[in-house]
Amino acid sequence: MKIIVVGASGTIGQAITEVLEKDHEIIRAGRNGLDVIVDITSVQSIKKMYEQTGKVDAVISAAGGAHFASVSELTPELNEIAIESKLKGQINLVLLGMDYVNDGGSFTLTTGIMMDDPIRQGASAAMANGGVKAFVKSAAIEMPRGIRINSVSPNVLQESLDKYGTFFPGFLPVPAKHVAFSFKKSVEGAQTGQNYEVY
Amino acid sequence: MKIIVVGASGTIGQAITEVLEKDHEIIRAGRNGLDVIVDITSVQSIKKMYEQTGKVDAVISAAGGAHFASVSELTPELNEIAIESKLKGQINLVLLGMDYVNDGGSFTLTTGIMMDDPIRQGASAAMANGGVKAFVKSAAIEMPRGIRINSVSPNVLQESLDKYGTFFPGFLPVPAKHVAFSFKKSVEGAQTGQNYEVY
Repeated sequence: MKIIVVGASGTIGQAITEVLEKDHEIIRAGRNGLDVIVDITSVQSIKKMYEQTGKVDAVISAAGGAHFASVSELTPELNEIAIESKLKGQINLVLLGMDYVNDGGSFTLTTGIMMDDPIRQGASAAMANGGVKAFVKSAAIEMPRGIRINSVSPNVLQESLDKYGTFFPGFLPVPAKHVAFSFKKSVEGAQTGQNYEVY
Repeated sequence: MKIIVVGASGTIGQAITEVLEKDHEIIRAGRNGLDVIVDITSVQSIKKMYEQTGKVDAVISAAGGAHFASVSELTPELNEIAIESKLKGQINLVLLGMDYVNDGGSFTLTTGIMMDDPIRQGASAAMANGGVKAFVKSAAIEMPRGIRINSVSPNVLQESLDKYGTFFPGFLPVPAKHVAFSFKKSVEGAQTGQNYEVY
């Protein structure tokens, strides 16, 4: 299959690429995309990416940021970061990519454990994750041409403990490779409307 | 208690007011608010509302719109309606209202059944509902001064069957009064971080 991985240079994106590149043609996309540059907060940039890639069999998103702040410190403006990036960015990859995905293809987006198991300063990220999860579940029932859609919800990664570990006290970290396996299940399996929890 | 009901002239808002007005002072707010006019898609309008009401004990939101379209017809622009209104509008009522809610007060927002039990054309609304639900669950763990936050997820209403019934085939409609009871539970009870399903 021909597969776009958006966020390919991130920790999860790299693990996805390693797991899938033996059997598939991977297009590595992202802000620092090795094959295609894309900024998912820009509708124009997403459109340009699809014009460059042409038709594909699967679109994977391991991209999307959010601002971490306590709910007392969070402002409408700071909350906008998660809205524009992790929520709308990922959903617009689906809405604008529909005509570029072949019959029977798939979209796989990324959510995250803090929507189910809240952490301090995580309300804005949780909001984006919950929005993506619900969109995926609902969109799945009316995707055209047998196209499937799922999401993957990672726990904190073993590889990111130095950077994010203090945000996740008592969370059992998972290796990025385990998260990548759920993306493989979504792309190569037949399920749709699922949110794979890698907890 | 002094309670703001945003969306007070809607079907659910009216039922909430009827259930609560015997025991509480209700400020009816909304685009056609009988007491205070507010457009939740505008940060300035929300700020102005709180300046007019001053300190309150509870903020209820029974407001927020979304565009209904199949996922093939949904565009980033049409999806923006749910983002601006049902998602950001409700969350900004919390972020901007924090300093106007008394110690031990509460926020109660509205989600909806389609995030759990998808319907055709409901992906954008489901996204907003899922985002609000996850925000509420996460924000609850770090709300200041004993302030609580919950959401209520209504099924299709008996009172709205003529208008929305065809969107919800086989759903058992609930009376608006049952939905209003969950808002009463949120305001007068002690729970936080909950999403009350009135299915």
